[in-house]
Formats: sequence, structure tokens, C-alpha cells
Amino acid sequence: MPPGEAAAGRTRLRVRYAETDQMGVAHHANYFSWFEMARTDLMRQRGLAYRDLEAGGIRLPVIEAWCRYRAPARYDDELEVEVWAEDLRPTRLTFGYRVWPAGARGGAPVAEGRTVHAFADVRGRPVRLERVRPDAWSQLQRVLGSGAGRPGR
Amino acid sequence: MPPGEAAAGRTRLRVRYAETDQMGVAHHANYFSWFEMARTDLMRQRGLAYRDLEAGGIRLPVIEAWCRYRAPARYDDELEVEVWAEDLRPTRLTFGYRVWPAGARGGAPVAEGRTVHAFADVRGRPVRLERVRPDAWSQLQRVLGSGAGRPGR
Amino acid sequence: MPPGEAAAGRTRLRVRYAETDQMGVAHHANYFSWFEMARTDLMRQRGLAYRDLEAGGIRLPVIEAWCRYRAPARYDDELEVEVWAEDLRPTRLTFGYRVWPAGARGGAPVAEGRTVHAFADVRGRPVRLERVRPDAWSQLQRVLGSGAGRPGR
Amino acid sequence: MPPGEAAAGRTRLRVRYAETDQMGVAHHANYFSWFEMARTDLMRQRGLAYRDLEAGGIRLPVIEAWCRYRAPARYDDELEVEVWAEDLRPTRLTFGYRVWPAGARGGAPVAEGRTVHAFADVRGRPVRLERVRPDAWSQLQRVLGSGAGRPGR
Repeated sequence: MPPGEAAAGRTRLRVRYAETDQMGVAHHANYFSWFEMARTDLMRQRGLAYRDLEAGGIRLPVIEAWCRYRAPARYDDELEVEVWAEDLRPTRLTFGYRVWPAGARGGAPVAEGRTVHAFADVRGRPVRLERVRPDAWSQLQRVLGSGAGRPGR
Repeated sequence: MPPGEAAAGRTRLRVRYAETDQMGVAHHANYFSWFEMARTDLMRQRGLAYRDLEAGGIRLPVIEAWCRYRAPARYDDELEVEVWAEDLRPTRLTFGYRVWPAGARGGAPVAEGRTVHAFADVRGRPVRLERVRPDAWSQLQRVLGSGAGRPGR
Repeated sequence: MPPGEAAAGRTRLRVRYAETDQMGVAHHANYFSWFEMARTDLMRQRGLAYRDLEAGGIRLPVIEAWCRYRAPARYDDELEVEVWAEDLRPTRLTFGYRVWPAGARGGAPVAEGRTVHAFADVRGRPVRLERVRPDAWSQLQRVLGSGAGRPGR
Repeated sequence: MPPGEAAAGRTRLRVRYAETDQMGVAHHANYFSWFEMARTDLMRQRGLAYRDLEAGGIRLPVIEAWCRYRAPARYDDELEVEVWAEDLRPTRLTFGYRVWPAGARGGAPVAEGRTVHAFADVRGRPVRLERVRPDAWSQLQRVLGSGAGRPGR
């Protein structure tokens, strides 16, 4: 379940023609790029840009990805991707997502999803973030933690 | 669990440069396109080309997609995607996937995944395949059914 | 050469992680999707949404595409795509593009490009727009024509 | 103009569903990924894998890309991309391409294109290949040169 409005981010996008397929809807693989845009925006807005994390030697490779598609999204549709930290642990970070028609409050989402990320070094080896980058770990806890680690909400 | 060799298909591909990201590995969203190639090949090889299904008014939109990434895939790596029908019901079809280094027998897969598809008409409305296209339903059962509907293997 | 500010549109975007490649920059193929976003926005803003043109049976397939890359674009960079109608004829429409760092006025563009589009019917056959859809033709002339057909500026 | 059969490479591919758009054809941006596959295969087959060039500190960023689309390519179509070195200079390398229906000899290509690549170091700065990597330069001349530098054929 998503956290309150305060803890979640929202990213707006328009479905690109290149993202459609011959079924006339946005191809399902694109949602994972949209999720990525949303968590990038969330982290940047909270003062912990993923770009800077990478520059500091930390990677967040996706180790699991999931999406349920509830309604089609079409070319030129304006959408909002809601994103929140679902779980934060020393070795991994989980984000939750819901995709909405832009401006929608309530109703059913277009899609919902989840990505799980490991903390890794530049060679892709798993690391415990609190050990190798205690500063980044504290910051992640502070900026994402309000929406994390509380299953059941 | 995948079925025996006989019921699964295998599609070979090479990781494209365009599929890498700045982490130096294949971007996670591409695996869903690889899954799609694999199920396309499986269906064509079994005599039930998805292209023909579509020409006949049936769509198989993805309603759920999942992937677990176990090891990175890199540019120019040759991979094999193993695919099998995991479940076949009157309103939906589930495929399972495992991605392997090309030629690997045994060892750990690079990734594993699942996609769930609804049967839909050209407008995207859900249909019971056995009602609207009993011929296609019988054929699907025959060509995919040997690997489907037997959880626990 | 691009037209004056009035005739050109500007679309803002951020480089997605999925758009980078292992060279650490935005992969060159993505620029063509960015061009597409820009001409989609330009046409919608001018009251002639491409979505509506398609709904009315007209397609604008790309018959030629070109891009020169002058400087790399990187993950999370904010860019602006400038777009204008370069040429409008009864059977085809040409757009010109320049990609800028967001907010830049002057200096060198990141990239520049061009796409040529045919007018086609739903089956992809070329049509003379003024004959099959005189209304759309007039509207295109009105909304795009101010920046078109004047080589040498 | 392409060189003789001996100097050109051919790469076979099938159009992926994800590569189609709602016009029902392969989206034009994908052709640039197909060109990339073809030149990757050509170089690997000639014993000068791009993967190894990169590992040795050399990059070949695209500085110009062009494609003319002559006929649509559709989902599940099997295509062949013909590729050859059109020009090789100390600071850049140009490839030419033609896309054919698989197995076609003669007739009209589906598309034709060109990409121009700079030689660059790991930071993306232009280099004269013969100076920084004389071995790679000699090898490139040997393996690609037979099809290069002869305009007018």
C-alpha cells in the first residue's frame, strides 16, 4: 500500500508514439522506464539525486520488477506515476508505483508495480550501504524512510 | 517450474548496444521484449503464429509481468530465452521464462520471469477464447497445453 | 535554418536512465523519439493534434530521418527540443529540429535533425492531403505554414 | 553505393512486437538499432569486435545518422541488414546500410542508411586512431578497408 501523499512523489509524462505498439496502446515494457523516471524524480526532489549516488560509486541495479496492467494507456495520454519507498534495508531498497491518468484523484490506477534494487559498487558487487557509505545510508533513511518499512499500511 | 525440454521453446539473441545502460549492463526493461520474442517464436514454431491470431481478431495483452534478475547480461553476450506455457485458462494464458547464457545446460539462469495475458478482442475487451474462437482455443490447448496447467513440476 | 521563435515549438524533457548506453550518454536512436515528442507537442499546441489526424484516417509515416550529434546528452540532463515545419507540400511535410540544454539561448545545440513525412491513408498508401482532406490541409498550412517553405532563412 | 558481396556483412533479425507502433509497422527509430547490430556483427566477424575495441579504451560514438524508409517492415517479418564500411579516415568511420526482406536478392530495399562515427577516448574526446592505437587502426584498415574509401562504386 502506498504511503500518504507527503511521502510519495508524482511524475507526469505523456505517452510517446514510439512507446505504442500495433495493439494501439503503450507497450508494457515502457512502464518500467516510467517507474524509473518516477524514482529518479523522487530521489532528486528529496535531495539525493541518483546521478550523484552513482558519481559516488553506488549503483542501485534492479533485481526484481513487477507490474500489473489494469487499463490501457494510449498515445498522447497524460499520465502520472506515483512512487514511494516501500522498504529500505541495509542491502536493498524497494519502490512501489501506481500509474494514474493525469490529475486523477481516486478511481482505479492504470497500472501498479514494484521494483526491488540492490546496493552495489561500481563492479556490480552487492554492498551493505550503511557500511560503505554511511552518509548516503543516513540520507536515504531520512529522505525515503518516511514511506518505508511499514508493511500493512 | 518449467516443463521438460520438449514443451519449452528456446530463442537465441545477442544483447544490443542500444539495450545497455550506463551501468554497463542490459537495461532491465529489455528482458520483457526478450520474453516477447521467445513466446512469439514458441507460438510460431507450434503452428499458431501470434501474427495470425491477431489477424483473426484476437489479442493477448499483457496484464501482469514479472522478472527476477540474477546476473547481469552484457553487450554482445549471446543469450537463450527458455519459454513455456505455465497456465492456460478460458480467459488467460501465462508464460514462464528463464534467460540463460547461450549454450548453458544447468547452472544458474541470468533471469527468470512470467507474463500473464488476457484474451481480448480488437477493442481490447476481454473474451472467453473457447467461445469466440473455439478453433484457436483447441489449437492453443493442443500446442501449448502440454506444458501448461501442471503446477508443482 | 529554423524560423523565428514564433513559428518554432519547444518541448522539454529529461534524459531517462533507460535511454543511456554503456558509453554513459543518451543512445543516438532516442533522439528520433525526442523529435517525435516535439512535433507531437507542436501540432497539439497549434490545434491540430496528430492523434486527431490519425483518428481521421491520415498517417504521417517517416520516410526519411537524419540527425547530427554535436555534444553528448547525459542521464538526468534537462533538454529542450526546438521544432519547426521546414517544408510543406501536397504529399509531404518536413520538420527541422535542434536539441538544446534546457534554458540555453545561443551557444551550440546538442544535436540537430530533420524528418520527412509522407501523407498516407490508413493502409499506408500515399495520398495528396489537399485532395483527401482539404480541411486538414488548410489547417496544416495555417498552423505550420508560417515556418515552412522558405528555404534559406 | 555498397561494395561487392565479399566486403559487406549481413545480419538477420525478426521485427519484435515491441518495435512496432500503432501505425502497425516497425517504428523508424528501431532501424538505427538494427544498423548497430549489423555493424557489431560485421566487426566481430572480421576479428575486430567492438566490445574489444571498447575494452581497449576506444569508442566509436555516432556523430551523424541517416535513414530513408522505402517500405514498411511489420511484426514478425524477417529482415536482413546489409552493412559495409563506406569511408575510413584517421578521425572517423562511415558505415552504409541496406535493409532487405530476408533472402531477397535484388528488388528494392526496405530501407537504406548511413552512420558516421568519430574515434574517441573513454572520456568521449576525439582522437586520431592511427596515433593512439596504431594496431587497431591497421586492423580496421585491413578488415574494413576493402569496402571503404571508394566513392562512386
